[in-house]
Amino acid sequence: MINKESLTHHISQQFNAELEEVRSHLLAMGGLVEKQVNDAVTALIEADSGLAQQVREVDEQINQMERNIDEECVRILARRQPAASDLRLIISISKSVIDLERIGDEATKIARRAIQLCEEGESPRGYVEVRHIGDQVRNMVRDALDAFARFDADLALSVAQYDKTIDREYKTALRELVTYMMEDPRSISRVLSVIWALRSLERIGDHARNISELVIYLVRGTDVRHMGLKRMTAEVQGTAVADAEKANVPGESDDK
Amino acid sequence: MINKESLTHHISQQFNAELEEVRSHLLAMGGLVEKQVNDAVTALIEADSGLAQQVREVDEQINQMERNIDEECVRILARRQPAASDLRLIISISKSVIDLERIGDEATKIARRAIQLCEEGESPRGYVEVRHIGDQVRNMVRDALDAFARFDADLALSVAQYDKTIDREYKTALRELVTYMMEDPRSISRVLSVIWALRSLERIGDHARNISELVIYLVRGTDVRHMGLKRMTAEVQGTAVADAEKANVPGESDDK
Repeated sequence: MINKESLTHHISQQFNAELEEVRSHLLAMGGLVEKQVNDAVTALIEADSGLAQQVREVDEQINQMERNIDEECVRILARRQPAASDLRLIISISKSVIDLERIGDEATKIARRAIQLCEEGESPRGYVEVRHIGDQVRNMVRDALDAFARFDADLALSVAQYDKTIDREYKTALRELVTYMMEDPRSISRVLSVIWALRSLERIGDHARNISELVIYLVRGTDVRHMGLKRMTAEVQGTAVADAEKANVPGESDDK
Repeated sequence: MINKESLTHHISQQFNAELEEVRSHLLAMGGLVEKQVNDAVTALIEADSGLAQQVREVDEQINQMERNIDEECVRILARRQPAASDLRLIISISKSVIDLERIGDEATKIARRAIQLCEEGESPRGYVEVRHIGDQVRNMVRDALDAFARFDADLALSVAQYDKTIDREYKTALRELVTYMMEDPRSISRVLSVIWALRSLERIGDHARNISELVIYLVRGTDVRHMGLKRMTAEVQGTAVADAEKANVPGESDDK
C-alpha cells in the first residue's frame, strides 16, 4: 500500500540514490584524471611516446565524463530542486568537474611535451624535479578526491595548505633551469619543454586546491576561496584567526 | 487589492528582476576584468610599475565580485528553483564567473611580469607580440561579454573561432622568442618574462572561448564544449556539418 509517508520516503530514497550516483561519477572521473597525471609524468620521464599518445586519446573520455556529470547536475537541479546541503553538493560537483577536466587538459599538455622530447632528444636537466613535483601533485589530486568522498574538511584543508609547498618548489626548479639554459643555450628548447611540464604540474596543484576549497564549502557551508590560508584554517578548525597564527600555520603572501 | 493573479505577476516580476540583476553584476565584473587585461598589457609595454601594482590591488575586488555573484546564484537556485532557460542562465552565469575570475588572475600575472621587467630591465624582444595578441584577446573578452549581454550565439561563435587565431599567433611568437634566446642567452630571464605574459594572454583567449561556449549553451541549449569548431558552427547556424565544411570554416586539430 502506498501512503503519503512511504511515497515521500521513496521519493527521498530515489533522490538520495541520484545524488550518490552523480557523486560516484565525479569520483570515477577523478580516478581516471589521477591516472592521466601519473601516466603523463611517467611518459615524460621514461621517454615513452606510446604512453603519451595514450594519455592524449583518453582525454576525450574525460571530456565526455564532464558532459555527462554536468547533465546529471542540471537534471537534478531542474527536477529535484535541492536545497541546503543537497544544493551545496550539486554546486560543488558541478564546479569540481571543471577543475578535473582542466587537470586532464594539463596532463594532455605534459603528454605533448613528452612526445616533443622524444623527438628532439632528452632535456639535460629537470627530470628529478618533474618526478618529485609530479608525485606530490598526484597525491594532492588523490587527497582532494578522498576528501570529497569522505566529506573530510580537514584533509581538504591540508591539500590547500600543501599547494604553497608546490608553488615554492616550482619556483626553485624554474630558477635552476633558467640558470642552466644560460649556461647551455643549445638546450633551451628541450629545457623549455620540461619547464612547460612543470608549469602544468603547478597548475594541477592549483586545481586540486580549488577542489579542496569546494569540499570545505560543501562540508562547512563557507566559501573559503581567496581567503588566505590562515583564515581558511581558522574557518575549518573552528578557531579564531589568532589561534591559527599561534599554531604556526605556514605563512603566505597569497601571491600565487 | 492583491489577488492571486497580481501576486503571481508580482512574484514573476520580482524573479525577473533578480535574474536581470545577477546578469548585470556578471557584466559589470566582466567590464572590470576587461579593464584589468588592458591595464596589465599597458603596464608591461610601457614599463609602468605603478599601473601594474594597481592591477594587482584591484584583483581583490574581482574576487569579491565572484563571491557575491556566486551567492546570488545559490540564493536564486534555492528560493526560485528556476527551470529551462532560467536555469540555463543561472548555470551559465555561475560558470562564467569562474572564467572571469581566472582572466583576472592572468591579468595579475601579467602585471607581476611587468613589475619584474621594470626591475630587471626591458626585454630585447616580444613587446610587439604582447601588444598585438593583447589587443586581440581583449576584444575576445569584450565580444564574449557582449554576446552574453545580447544573447547573441553568432557573436559567441565568432569568439570561439577566433581562439584558433590566437593559438597560432602565440605559437609563432614563442618560436621566434626561443630562437632569440638562443642567440642572446643573457636575455633569457627577461625574454621569459615576456613569454609568460604571452602565455597568460593565450589563456585569457581560452577563457573567453569558454564564456562564449556558455553563451551558446544559454541561447541554444546545447553543450558545445569539446565539440570541435565545425560541429559547433553547424550547431549554432543550424546547418549540417557538411555545409559548415563547405562554408570553409577554419580547420582545426582541436589540439589546443
